[in-house]
This record gives sequence, structure tokens and C-alpha cells, in this order.
Amino acid sequence: VSAPDAERWARAAWSALAEPGDVVAGALVAQLGAVDAWRWVASCTPGRVHLPEGVAPRSAARVARAVARWAPRLRRLTDEGWSADAPPPVRAAGTRVLVPGDDDWPSGLADLGAAAPSCLWVRGGSGALGRRRTVAVVGARAATAYGERVAVDLAVGVVEAGFVVVSGGAYGIDAAAHRGALAVGGRTLVVVAGGVDRAYPAGNARLVEEAVAAGGAVVGEVPPGGLPTRSRFLQRNRLIAALGAATVVVEAAWRSGALSTAHHAARAGRPVGAVPGPVTSTASAGCHRLLRDGLAVCVTDAAEVVELAGVLGADAAPERDGPVRALDGLDPVTRRVHDALSTRTGRDAQTVARAAGVTPGEAIEALGLLELAGVVRNDPGGWRASRV
Amino acid sequence: VSAPDAERWARAAWSALAEPGDVVAGALVAQLGAVDAWRWVASCTPGRVHLPEGVAPRSAARVARAVARWAPRLRRLTDEGWSADAPPPVRAAGTRVLVPGDDDWPSGLADLGAAAPSCLWVRGGSGALGRRRTVAVVGARAATAYGERVAVDLAVGVVEAGFVVVSGGAYGIDAAAHRGALAVGGRTLVVVAGGVDRAYPAGNARLVEEAVAAGGAVVGEVPPGGLPTRSRFLQRNRLIAALGAATVVVEAAWRSGALSTAHHAARAGRPVGAVPGPVTSTASAGCHRLLRDGLAVCVTDAAEVVELAGVLGADAAPERDGPVRALDGLDPVTRRVHDALSTRTGRDAQTVARAAGVTPGEAIEALGLLELAGVVRNDPGGWRASRV
Repeated sequence: VSAPDAERWARAAWSALAEPGDVVAGALVAQLGAVDAWRWVASCTPGRVHLPEGVAPRSAARVARAVARWAPRLRRLTDEGWSADAPPPVRAAGTRVLVPGDDDWPSGLADLGAAAPSCLWVRGGSGALGRRRTVAVVGARAATAYGERVAVDLAVGVVEAGFVVVSGGAYGIDAAAHRGALAVGGRTLVVVAGGVDRAYPAGNARLVEEAVAAGGAVVGEVPPGGLPTRSRFLQRNRLIAALGAATVVVEAAWRSGALSTAHHAARAGRPVGAVPGPVTSTASAGCHRLLRDGLAVCVTDAAEVVELAGVLGADAAPERDGPVRALDGLDPVTRRVHDALSTRTGRDAQTVARAAGVTPGEAIEALGLLELAGVVRNDPGGWRASRV
Repeated sequence: VSAPDAERWARAAWSALAEPGDVVAGALVAQLGAVDAWRWVASCTPGRVHLPEGVAPRSAARVARAVARWAPRLRRLTDEGWSADAPPPVRAAGTRVLVPGDDDWPSGLADLGAAAPSCLWVRGGSGALGRRRTVAVVGARAATAYGERVAVDLAVGVVEAGFVVVSGGAYGIDAAAHRGALAVGGRTLVVVAGGVDRAYPAGNARLVEEAVAAGGAVVGEVPPGGLPTRSRFLQRNRLIAALGAATVVVEAAWRSGALSTAHHAARAGRPVGAVPGPVTSTASAGCHRLLRDGLAVCVTDAAEVVELAGVLGADAAPERDGPVRALDGLDPVTRRVHDALSTRTGRDAQTVARAAGVTPGEAIEALGLLELAGVVRNDPGGWRASRV
């Protein structure tokens, strides 16, 4: 199902007109369609805005402000040839415009509601887009060697589990996540705040080209040539959050853009993971903050990230050393005694002792402990394990 | 309010007769009083146990097993002079028996129910006992330099906030916690699994003496001379958990006795904290497990531990860099714009821009972002901050 050309062109034009995350633009495009919304805004005179049909009168002031905001840029764009009737006048080599309805349009973007991008500008393979098995791996530019190592390890592990890695194009954790994924032949999405033809920062240009060459893609929501402004960086974070089935923060200072990605992910209903680190490292303070605030789950390896991002059950992290139980931390004798119990048949202490290979005295002591822990009970039929 | 001598002697005798955590002994002593419970058990013939008055017939089998368990030891203790009519025949220098009703009996032990100790054997100052401001700092014997440093720092910080540090007498985190507390003149409780006259391990003997000399105490629940058996170690953990207003695990392997302390603390309704560490360190795996399982709160410094253990509100950890808000991670302009809003008076964008010292365009963009984040609203009266 592909969008008609005009709708595609108009969505591209909207991506040039409205700043990323402009919810008025998003709402108008959703309500009227991109073509009609574009024609309506082109017909507006700032200061005397007529509301399009179907838009609630109580939105009038807000819509008027939006039109005032768009007016100067609209004139320039019209002069440059942007419209709902023609392909976008800018187009870098290998760049495509992806719109809702395209096969590889990422369905998760719908969770952004009116703040969803009107289109995505994509450079590179489409195989990495439209995938459900994605993990956003984000973190500080000012990462430590520890953080970069963990980011590489996590990326390697999630790629081996069949996931696409989503991150920004910055130094530090972003770059390490791409490096790890590429090292094992994985595909990654490099989500940029400016045009997809701009490598940002320049020092990562080669890494980004490697990602594209490996079947990954550079993804953005402003047209080629667009500048990565500060506000676009912040909005870029919501895109990363929505493109990942889960978001993992590897390292982040107490105040860090990565935390805004985590907040966006949580708001979009995505699971968020945080990698702990030494409490003596300020680069982990933001991760610990997410854990303390209950906004993130503690993740320590790729298996736990896969569990977070994956299909429930199918991707559960393997238990370490057997299942986690109320009995953990107890001594071997007590555990053997517990294992010798049935949940259905009552047994006397002698029988339990024989089955567990312990002395009757040890069995009795262990049963007392287990009863105290609430995991066994002793009724007239004898000792039984409680159902957990 | 001091217990009558006989009750004190009988409770001491029970501490010699029943193993730590024996809930049958605890229930009988609670029901009959220590003196009458002792007299009753002394009158029993194993194999033909008569239930004392007030004990439910359905407990008969359990009580009979307990009597069978106690019988050999009871004969020996009686020969040694233990009874409800005379002071305990063993008493190491400087050792006291503390029983419920004594001024410095720790009220928190009541949370152990029938598993509460019949008495405490105490060596050292009583000033450290019976205090409500206590924190248990526990962790691995096989601690890393990182873990020991954090344990020292946390102990220093909680002592400076007026807390007594509770821990075991082991190497590693236990010893580091005591060292930190002692370094700043703090009092500590060394909770041991054997008799309080035994330093365990011997290499920590000097540290324990320093703790006692500084007004702290060595605390145990078996009489002087008692051996620190494996099961007593496990029961000792419940005592540490109940003596701390909160329990903090600094480092713990995936399976570690410190986790059993944490579980005991959670079961006794105590807040539990876990200190994160590098995910590459197996010494932190148990802490991360507690965090993942939601059994512990992430704590990274003494202020957060004090908040966990302290009086709600009065001991809240100081906010870092101002309050934690939905706006964290946003850029300075957006924050300034938010700060320029009132929750009560509506303001137009121009006014907000002037107050925030930003351009009208920046203000409008920021207001859009903030509205998207759900922290401001725009009604006919203008822009307002939402009440958080």
C-alpha cells in the first residue's frame, strides 16, 4: 500500500514547513490529509485565519499562532518549489521519503500521536526500517571506557538475537552501539536531528557510511540540508524512543539528553532499561536516577535487554543457575530438603531426610527454616512444599 | 521496666536450648512466658508430650517434634546449671543478657514474630542498642576495592546523619562498614552468629574491639562460647535485617548471604537498598538482581540511604541541582519559558517571552513542546503551568 504521490509530496513539504514535533501540524495533517492541510495553510492570511472544516473552534487561537509561526517559512518554501503538486525540490543522492502506508513505515511511530513525523527522510537500505525487533541504545557523548564497552557488548548481543539497533550519530555511547552492531554484521538506524545527508558530528561520518553500507539507514525528519538545531535534537530523541521497541540508557549524566529519550520512551509506552555503573562515576548518575525513579528496569546484559524489547515469553532472559526462588541464599542442605518435598503429598521428616540425603536433625532444622520462610507447611498429612 | 530475674534467666536458658529462629520455641515462650515454657519442657518426656494449656491441639505433632529436638540438649544444659531459677552458668566478661522490656531492647525485633530471639547476648555499650536510627550495611566477603570504598563512604555518611551502623563481623563489606563508621566516631553493632565472646573471623578481632571501645556492641543470640554454625549464620542475617531500620546491600554475588539478609529485611517490612556497580563485576550481580526483581531501591550515596532508613520527610535526600521534574533533559530555553509561567495566572506568549528573556518565536516553540509534554496548558486566559 503506497501513498498517492501528492500525499507523499505534501508530507515531505510539511516536514520542511513545521518543526519536528509540531503537534498542530500533526493534528491538521491527520485530520485533513497532508495535501488539503497544505492547501489550506497556503490559503491562509496570517492574522485572519479561517479554521478548516472539522477543526474545533476552541483550537482557533492555537491554530492561528501556528499559522503565524509557519507563514514566513511557507513563503520561502513556496518560492523554492515545495508544494502538494510536485516532488520535493531538494533530494540528496540515495534519499527516499517514507510516509505512513509504505511497507517499511515503522508502525511504532503511531504511538507519537500528533507529534509523529509527517514523513521520514531515509538514506540507505530499507531492510532495517519497519522492523519490530528494534532496540534503541542511547547514552552520553561523554561516555567512559566502561560505558562504551557495555554499549558494544549489548549491541553485539541484541544483533545476535535478531534485533536492529537504533541510536543517534553522536560520539560516545551512540557510536559504540553502532560499532558493536556492525562488528557482527548487524543493521542499525542512525537517527539524526538534521538532514540525512549531513553526517553529524563529522568525525562519525565514516561510521555512518559503514552503517549504510551494511544495510542500515540514516533516518531524519527534516529535509536534506536541514540543520541539527538544539530543539531538533530534543525532538530527535522522541523519534529514537518511538523507533525502538525498547530503549536502553547505557550511560548518562544526571542531566543528559539520553534521559529525555528515556522519558519519551516511557511516555510512548515503551519499556526502558538502564545500565547501572559505579556510583562513583558521574557518567552513570542519570542511569541510577532512572532506576531510583522507577522509570527504568535494571539491565546488565544483552539477554536482559532482549527480554525487555522482545516478545514476552519467547525472549525471556535465561535464568542464571536455575530459577530464582524464595530459597536463594539458603544453604545446600536446606535446598535439598526443600527439593525432597512434594506440593501434593505430605511427608514426615524422616522420609524427607532420607530423600534429601541428610540426617533427621538436619531435615527438621531445615523444615523449620523453610516454614519460617513461608515456603513449606506442615499439616496433619505431613510436610509439603507450598505452591509458589 | 526490667524483666523479673527468673524471666531473664529463663530467656537466656532458651537461647541455649533452641536454635536461632526456632519458631516453636518462640511461640511457646511468647504464650507461656519463658519461665513456664522452660518448666513445661523440662517436665516433658519425649515421645509422650503433654501439650501446655492454651496451645492448639493441631500443633501437637509440631510441638512433639520440637521437644524431641530439644531433649538431648536440655539434659546437658540442666546438668550444666541452666534453669529458670538461677543466672546462666556461662557469662563472658562484660557480657549482658538483654530481654524484651529492657530499655535498650531493640523494638524492631518484634517484627520477627515467633522467630524473634528469646534474648540478646551483648558485649559492649548499650548506647548503640535500642536506637531507631539504624542502618544495616551488608555485602560480600569477597568485596572489591570499589565495594569497600562505597561501604566506607556510606557508613561515614549515615553516622554523620546520626545513625548506628549494623553489620556482621566478616571481611569485605562488613568490615569496611565498621571501619567507615569508626573513622568518624560512630557506633556500630557487630551482629555475630556465635557467642559474642568469639571474634569471627579472628582477623577482624581488633576491629570488633575498636567498635566496642567506641561505644558500639557485639550482639548475638546464642550464649558465650556458642559456635557460628552455617544455619546460625543464616539466622544471624534475619537479626541484622530486623536491627536495621533499613538494609543496604553494597556488593553481593548472584548467590550471596547478603541477599538472604535483604530478603529477611523485605519480609520484616524494612526498606532495602542496593548499590549498583559495574555490570562487568560479578561482585555487583546480586545487587543488580535485587534491583531487577524490584526488591531493592537503587541507592548511590549516604543521603539516599538516610532517606531510605530515616523518618519520612525529615530525612529526604537533598535534591541535586534543584527538583526533579518532567522537564529534565530539556534545553535551557524551554526551562526558562516554563519558569516564566504561573500555575494560576494565564499569560500570553509575548509576556512569557519577555519574562523568560527569549524571542517570541522561541517562546512559542517551547510552549508547544511543553504542551506536548503535558506540563503546560493553554486555555482562553492564556498559557499556564500545570500543577505537578
